[in-house]
Amino acid sequence: MFQVIKKSKKSNARLTKLTTAHGTIAGPFFMPLATRGAVKHLSTDELADLGAQILLANTYHLLLRPGPGLLQRYRGLHQFMNWHGPILTDSGGFQVFSLGAYRKITEDGVAFSDPQNGNRYFLSPEKAIGIQRAIGSDIAMVLDECPAYPCTKTYAGRSLELTSRWAARCKKEHQKKKGTQLLFGIVQGSVFKSLRVASARQLTAIGFDGYAIGGVAVGEPRKKMVQVLNWTVPELPENKPRYLMGVGRPEEIVAAVRQGIDMFDCVIPTREARHGRLYVWNYLERGRREPLLSPRSEQRLRPSRLLKGEFYKTINITQAKFAKDLSPINHTNLKQYSRAYLHHLFKTNEPLGMRLATLHNLECYLVLMQRIRTSINQGVL
Amino acid sequence: MFQVIKKSKKSNARLTKLTTAHGTIAGPFFMPLATRGAVKHLSTDELADLGAQILLANTYHLLLRPGPGLLQRYRGLHQFMNWHGPILTDSGGFQVFSLGAYRKITEDGVAFSDPQNGNRYFLSPEKAIGIQRAIGSDIAMVLDECPAYPCTKTYAGRSLELTSRWAARCKKEHQKKKGTQLLFGIVQGSVFKSLRVASARQLTAIGFDGYAIGGVAVGEPRKKMVQVLNWTVPELPENKPRYLMGVGRPEEIVAAVRQGIDMFDCVIPTREARHGRLYVWNYLERGRREPLLSPRSEQRLRPSRLLKGEFYKTINITQAKFAKDLSPINHTNLKQYSRAYLHHLFKTNEPLGMRLATLHNLECYLVLMQRIRTSINQGVL
Repeated sequence: MFQVIKKSKKSNARLTKLTTAHGTIAGPFFMPLATRGAVKHLSTDELADLGAQILLANTYHLLLRPGPGLLQRYRGLHQFMNWHGPILTDSGGFQVFSLGAYRKITEDGVAFSDPQNGNRYFLSPEKAIGIQRAIGSDIAMVLDECPAYPCTKTYAGRSLELTSRWAARCKKEHQKKKGTQLLFGIVQGSVFKSLRVASARQLTAIGFDGYAIGGVAVGEPRKKMVQVLNWTVPELPENKPRYLMGVGRPEEIVAAVRQGIDMFDCVIPTREARHGRLYVWNYLERGRREPLLSPRSEQRLRPSRLLKGEFYKTINITQAKFAKDLSPINHTNLKQYSRAYLHHLFKTNEPLGMRLATLHNLECYLVLMQRIRTSINQGVL
Repeated sequence: MFQVIKKSKKSNARLTKLTTAHGTIAGPFFMPLATRGAVKHLSTDELADLGAQILLANTYHLLLRPGPGLLQRYRGLHQFMNWHGPILTDSGGFQVFSLGAYRKITEDGVAFSDPQNGNRYFLSPEKAIGIQRAIGSDIAMVLDECPAYPCTKTYAGRSLELTSRWAARCKKEHQKKKGTQLLFGIVQGSVFKSLRVASARQLTAIGFDGYAIGGVAVGEPRKKMVQVLNWTVPELPENKPRYLMGVGRPEEIVAAVRQGIDMFDCVIPTREARHGRLYVWNYLERGRREPLLSPRSEQRLRPSRLLKGEFYKTINITQAKFAKDLSPINHTNLKQYSRAYLHHLFKTNEPLGMRLATLHNLECYLVLMQRIRTSINQGVL
């Protein structure tokens, strides 16, 4: 069940509530990536402490290892990975299509081989649903084809027609068994207005529990993503969740919320953490005697682009200037550790460094989402 | 302050209590390695939850990075790494002497260069004490020379004489400033009875807060280590703690406790965890429906060698047979995760795998120490 609790008067932002088999999620929300059934370096207890409401896992990766058979024996991924909140599974279309020479697409589905050991697989819309059923995710995604950027309008058009036919097959397969799992469609159409509109209309005609916008954050200019949302969102039903796949940086998330998006996932906070790149956000800097951030030091965005009076930058903790920085990593979940210590952990390749950096970046993202929800509720976003 | 609470009537084992500036430690005890100021993959909260009473850090590694200057600014390693229990620092002698061509020993001390960047350092007994004072460890170790195994009696003899002269200089330097830090001497002498006895006598004549037995677990046969303890322990004062450096496997620890040792450290549980090698100990297996261990499957040791009716083996979790093993990793701190999940994490290179394996192996070691203490108290060891 999905409810729009409140609609902003200043933008298309909305405060939402999505009920799944494993709990209710307040939106707009961000999903940390547990691609292979684990968020890198973190335990599920830590994710719960961070306030993560839902995790994202990947059908393609779980198909290869550990395989749907084991997950079925386990009665699903939740128990396997010890996460008892909601899980969304991406269908794996994006990953399969990234395989290039290793895969072949037909009307029926896509044949591919595991680059690691050469094992052959065939993923059809029906199989994608079957695997996601074995995984037991709360939200399943249809199998889609995600064209690369840039691509020709002809290719994008043919591709989205295939995606729509596959979406219909997914829906049909999904309906065969009653259950609580939700199924989302994925709008494609690259950066072409008519195609995005057509894709959205075809999917809404089939009817899904929610709608994702795919084929963005694949290398197109940021302006294009804004346009894609401008074209697509008005075509989607008001009373269903809208999910912008693979997005993005904090300012992109805030902008997309303003355009009416409810759900996000992105590899950025966790991957950048592993490279020592940390978000420094003035909200989490509060109380710091000598703030690293001042409005002048703000690099990427104008204050208006995030929340009122709020801005961030990223730092690389491995830089020499942090060797002697005794100030805490942040003032919330990592106040007991200094930047100097985190610098030391990265310089000595101590794995605890990546873990602390991941905890910090996810804290930034999850607190940002919380603040976005509060801002909508207070009528200021 | 050090107290022998109870002496076994069945062996030389003793129940002890060692009071340091950061707390009292019940012995016999095991010190997990936080060589560079972090136990690999674990937070200090997790170590406290595991029941770790004291951690071991290394003077040599901390001298190179982050350096004593930063630690002094921080008023010590405790605050830097967010560990508020006791810390013992090894002097770094063993590490420096492992450098081979990178170091040169003189009467004064040892000159060496950091293999990573070529920076030159000089470590004298006085400097080793100064650095450990900056680190603020609860227990400092003298600078010693640890000869390789095998070595000639002539070399071992000259080496232990140097170690004794350095020990006296360490003691003198250490006495210059009043403080709560304890200082331990290190007995050397390779596998030669007369040399071990001489070393122990020279050190006890100088007088330390505790005595370590070094130069073991360097490749000598296990029988030799038993002999070294037989020669050395009777020469050490009853009323001071005895520390067997770098030892060892569970059965070696139990055997050494029987010989009168109170303190242990070893890289084995944490390093093996990172290679997927897990301790399976029947005590932590209790309640398992189909126990992996039965007296017959016991590989390494006779039950008598560990505790009464207790035995263990090690498994490699990456083996295919664990892919479908739905039984929990153990029945204490990791009952919520299956072996199949841990197998999956290792096969997909998820860093959470190493973390869980480390949590398991340290649990085994720390619970073993607890059971050793209980067994001494109950008069059965």
